[in-house]
Amino acid sequence: MAAVADRKPGAAEAFANEFGVAKWYPSHQDLLNDSAIDAVAVITSTSTHKEVVIDAARSGKAIFCEKPISLTLEDAQEMIRAAAAKGVFFQMAFQRRFDAGYLAARRKLEAGAIGDPVMFTSISRDPYPPPLEFCDPRVSGGLIADMGVHDFDVGRMYMGDVRRVHAIGGTLAYPEMKSVGDIDNAVVDLVFQSGALGVVQLSRNAAWGYDIRGELWGTKGSIQIGYYRQTPILMMTSEGITHDAVPYFMERFETAYLTQIQDFADHVRKGLPPSITAADAVAALRISLAANQSMREGRPVDL
Amino acid sequence: MAAVADRKPGAAEAFANEFGVAKWYPSHQDLLNDSAIDAVAVITSTSTHKEVVIDAARSGKAIFCEKPISLTLEDAQEMIRAAAAKGVFFQMAFQRRFDAGYLAARRKLEAGAIGDPVMFTSISRDPYPPPLEFCDPRVSGGLIADMGVHDFDVGRMYMGDVRRVHAIGGTLAYPEMKSVGDIDNAVVDLVFQSGALGVVQLSRNAAWGYDIRGELWGTKGSIQIGYYRQTPILMMTSEGITHDAVPYFMERFETAYLTQIQDFADHVRKGLPPSITAADAVAALRISLAANQSMREGRPVDL
Amino acid sequence: MAAVADRKPGAAEAFANEFGVAKWYPSHQDLLNDSAIDAVAVITSTSTHKEVVIDAARSGKAIFCEKPISLTLEDAQEMIRAAAAKGVFFQMAFQRRFDAGYLAARRKLEAGAIGDPVMFTSISRDPYPPPLEFCDPRVSGGLIADMGVHDFDVGRMYMGDVRRVHAIGGTLAYPEMKSVGDIDNAVVDLVFQSGALGVVQLSRNAAWGYDIRGELWGTKGSIQIGYYRQTPILMMTSEGITHDAVPYFMERFETAYLTQIQDFADHVRKGLPPSITAADAVAALRISLAANQSMREGRPVDL
Amino acid sequence: MAAVADRKPGAAEAFANEFGVAKWYPSHQDLLNDSAIDAVAVITSTSTHKEVVIDAARSGKAIFCEKPISLTLEDAQEMIRAAAAKGVFFQMAFQRRFDAGYLAARRKLEAGAIGDPVMFTSISRDPYPPPLEFCDPRVSGGLIADMGVHDFDVGRMYMGDVRRVHAIGGTLAYPEMKSVGDIDNAVVDLVFQSGALGVVQLSRNAAWGYDIRGELWGTKGSIQIGYYRQTPILMMTSEGITHDAVPYFMERFETAYLTQIQDFADHVRKGLPPSITAADAVAALRISLAANQSMREGRPVDL
Repeated sequence: MAAVADRKPGAAEAFANEFGVAKWYPSHQDLLNDSAIDAVAVITSTSTHKEVVIDAARSGKAIFCEKPISLTLEDAQEMIRAAAAKGVFFQMAFQRRFDAGYLAARRKLEAGAIGDPVMFTSISRDPYPPPLEFCDPRVSGGLIADMGVHDFDVGRMYMGDVRRVHAIGGTLAYPEMKSVGDIDNAVVDLVFQSGALGVVQLSRNAAWGYDIRGELWGTKGSIQIGYYRQTPILMMTSEGITHDAVPYFMERFETAYLTQIQDFADHVRKGLPPSITAADAVAALRISLAANQSMREGRPVDL
Repeated sequence: MAAVADRKPGAAEAFANEFGVAKWYPSHQDLLNDSAIDAVAVITSTSTHKEVVIDAARSGKAIFCEKPISLTLEDAQEMIRAAAAKGVFFQMAFQRRFDAGYLAARRKLEAGAIGDPVMFTSISRDPYPPPLEFCDPRVSGGLIADMGVHDFDVGRMYMGDVRRVHAIGGTLAYPEMKSVGDIDNAVVDLVFQSGALGVVQLSRNAAWGYDIRGELWGTKGSIQIGYYRQTPILMMTSEGITHDAVPYFMERFETAYLTQIQDFADHVRKGLPPSITAADAVAALRISLAANQSMREGRPVDL
Repeated sequence: MAAVADRKPGAAEAFANEFGVAKWYPSHQDLLNDSAIDAVAVITSTSTHKEVVIDAARSGKAIFCEKPISLTLEDAQEMIRAAAAKGVFFQMAFQRRFDAGYLAARRKLEAGAIGDPVMFTSISRDPYPPPLEFCDPRVSGGLIADMGVHDFDVGRMYMGDVRRVHAIGGTLAYPEMKSVGDIDNAVVDLVFQSGALGVVQLSRNAAWGYDIRGELWGTKGSIQIGYYRQTPILMMTSEGITHDAVPYFMERFETAYLTQIQDFADHVRKGLPPSITAADAVAALRISLAANQSMREGRPVDL
Repeated sequence: MAAVADRKPGAAEAFANEFGVAKWYPSHQDLLNDSAIDAVAVITSTSTHKEVVIDAARSGKAIFCEKPISLTLEDAQEMIRAAAAKGVFFQMAFQRRFDAGYLAARRKLEAGAIGDPVMFTSISRDPYPPPLEFCDPRVSGGLIADMGVHDFDVGRMYMGDVRRVHAIGGTLAYPEMKSVGDIDNAVVDLVFQSGALGVVQLSRNAAWGYDIRGELWGTKGSIQIGYYRQTPILMMTSEGITHDAVPYFMERFETAYLTQIQDFADHVRKGLPPSITAADAVAALRISLAANQSMREGRPVDL
């Protein structure tokens, strides 16, 4: 049995009708009171994660929480304590960890295919910006926290923890973003504990599609992750040779999202520990916050 | 409610257990007697299609039939008459027609993106041969009918009907295939009614993966269909730059198979005509048979 | 010391001025009378090869002759006898044999990288047709002899001799070609002495650029030869992802042409036998003529 | 008439013999005294540029100078003054500016194909490190000056001047480099005067080949510069789908080097101003030095 809740009037019902969900509620509290529900997925604005997760923890239901975990480290700690107090299952969402490309790269790296990794590169570029009210750092955490947290998480997965961060950024493509205090492009340098280097590029103006790439650079070779092409046709005319692009995250990570939510359900059912923990989410958030501070203060920040 | 039938002892039950199918039967006749079943998918050796389809038609159930429709044109006509006599819905399976690449190419062609088509190229290569007993032309129809029927079908979809066929082939990679009278590689030339040319390459020894490609060659450009890569990672070492290949048809056409069976269900439910008709299947079979005759007699064959 | 000759009034002088050639002549006979010239390159219409080569042979100069060697097998034999009678060096031009891609494929094939070859595919497509007077089969030999001779030559290089040919073709893109009796698209099937299969596609309407591809298909893998891209930039905009194409043969084979003429000069100087012999040229011509006959008579032709 | 000079005993003669150079000298001064020489190309270690260029300027000969111009800004200024004092032609070597890819990207950018540029990415990775004595920052300037100066130069060409630099780096692949005080991997962030962002990645351990890439990221699209493939063959076996890589700079920039030196000769002959000026070289050096300082001091450096 499934149910959906949304505070926006009518939204939950509309969603339930479109996707054949049995029940709908006007608030997460109502849904949490439904004893037929065992587990919840918290897919709301980052600024609301704290409230919803703590309520869910108190209701004793298993929790799947969208990234980033929260806007501040303090909020994250409070959420973690609430989950721990009730002993509820708490899994973070980082779908790239379930993507065939990122997984294959991990296996190759661990098998020694590229020797010792010396540099990690990660690019995340959205085809267009989210609504202005979402860009507001008080809602989403801003570009670096909202998008970069994916790159920081996979960086940690491959390379271990980060010890120093430096960031530059600017509002270069959408001047209106300045009104809410967000930027649309950024570069974040990482120095890992191992001494290896990292560089993350973030952008909201990938006019041609959704641009997600990674590279693991090692002493014996390199692994590139990513592709540009969605449909397997190539057009060849006097205009040149052309193919389409990956439209957006739903197309790029369709299978990864399905695998991730199935993994959550399996782990809850089987009593296994979560695949991605709150500690992972906190570590990625910590890097995001340090990058924001670096950009603000114009200097590297140690973690 | 779903059920599965298989003549092989234990096979239906094993399948039902593995995939959560509610009921299983030791023969298709038993399943056809189940009044809770409205529609059947006939996914058996080509040599058995005639019997199963005619029985299904007599039972009044909607029919989805794997390609090729049958081993001979006479059998196909008998099946069609049986379906017509009971007015049952009869849809052929040609999943390439539901693949994003083949569909996009069709839209581009119809939009005039490459001008008038002058040549059609289609390549189908399996990574390894089916079991010898399946290769037997009396079971599967042999290489040209079993595999080429896909290429002939998409050729007709893009270019219209065929008026002349010429084929060459050989048992070049697996000498043991000679024992059942099959070949493992073939080239089939087509001349379409429009005068446009076609060439189909078939092989059972794509050692590196599943090789499905097409090209529509026109007066103003070309459309290439196909890709070689399954997982989005690229390995770069001193051995060269390497990526993986598409393993086999389940991976290459996973989405197309789902879309196709959904299309069947939708059309049955809504009372719409089948997306791919028995006439399409007969036309593709006729080309296959002419190609076999051409190879046998060493001369072009007019349709 | 270099000289150039051209029968077209003023053409030799203009060429000499443009490229800094020391001397020019109004006819090949005048040039052949120049005792300062040791070797000649015959780069004229196929229909004139016989006359020029025989004159050059009589003058005792080393000869480099453009493909195809001649319009008929009889002419070729006469040219070969003339060269043999004077013992002159006679090398045929087939620049693909000097291309890095075709050479690398040969080395890989010979090293067993793909096991035994079972199919050879070769595509040659020009971006636009030559002048109508050149298309005239009495001048150039027509599409199959003029273009296909390259594909037949590399086919022989990789796969050995051909025993049977079948061809289909049509005047599909440029109706005006019918006025001189030429076609603009063709498919030629080959059966090699080994039993392996071959298929050659020829076209004069590669609207997007110059399309030269090959594939060696073996029991353990495949080698693809060719590329579509000239300049190393990739454009990514909302129109899609686009790169340029290879414009024409001068760009695609620039290095191969230089290597080939250098090879000719080196072999003449060092007294080595020619890298590509008249026998190679005759074998490729024989296939071309059989393919033309096959198309005319609508049946396979044995060699 | 051409001559070559090298201080290393026997080196000039050996070079002259190998490449058919008419004369050779044991020192650059001897060559500069040869009145038959009009122009010189200074292709020596960076640490010797100052001496050789100043001597050449005093001799009144036109000068082509390899990058980077010098180890310090003071040396560069002295060289420029020496050239100015004698009014000699002085052109810097930055061959990427003559590469078909970098040139095409420039034309596309200037034509507005990607809107306003917001980010510049440049990657330079050598397949293996130079000799240790060359790595010594007192000889070559170290990784960032020796390699990065190319990236900084093309960055300026596309994006204008730089106002702020931040660099991180490490000796991660070749521990022995620490003995001469050099690093083998670095990331350099740039903030351009326009506010646009830049990121340069440098490495000495591209185990698989020579890795030169660029990307111009704009409000309406992106231009990628670079390719991975040298020979146009693709191997497809059960090991995967593989092609070769670009071995090193001589292969990647063969045509650009020829075009560049031809451009130098043409400009000297025609009395045109140099295509790349000392001011360009100084600007790129300034960025290199600031990046080295940033890395040393662990903070961004303003220019």
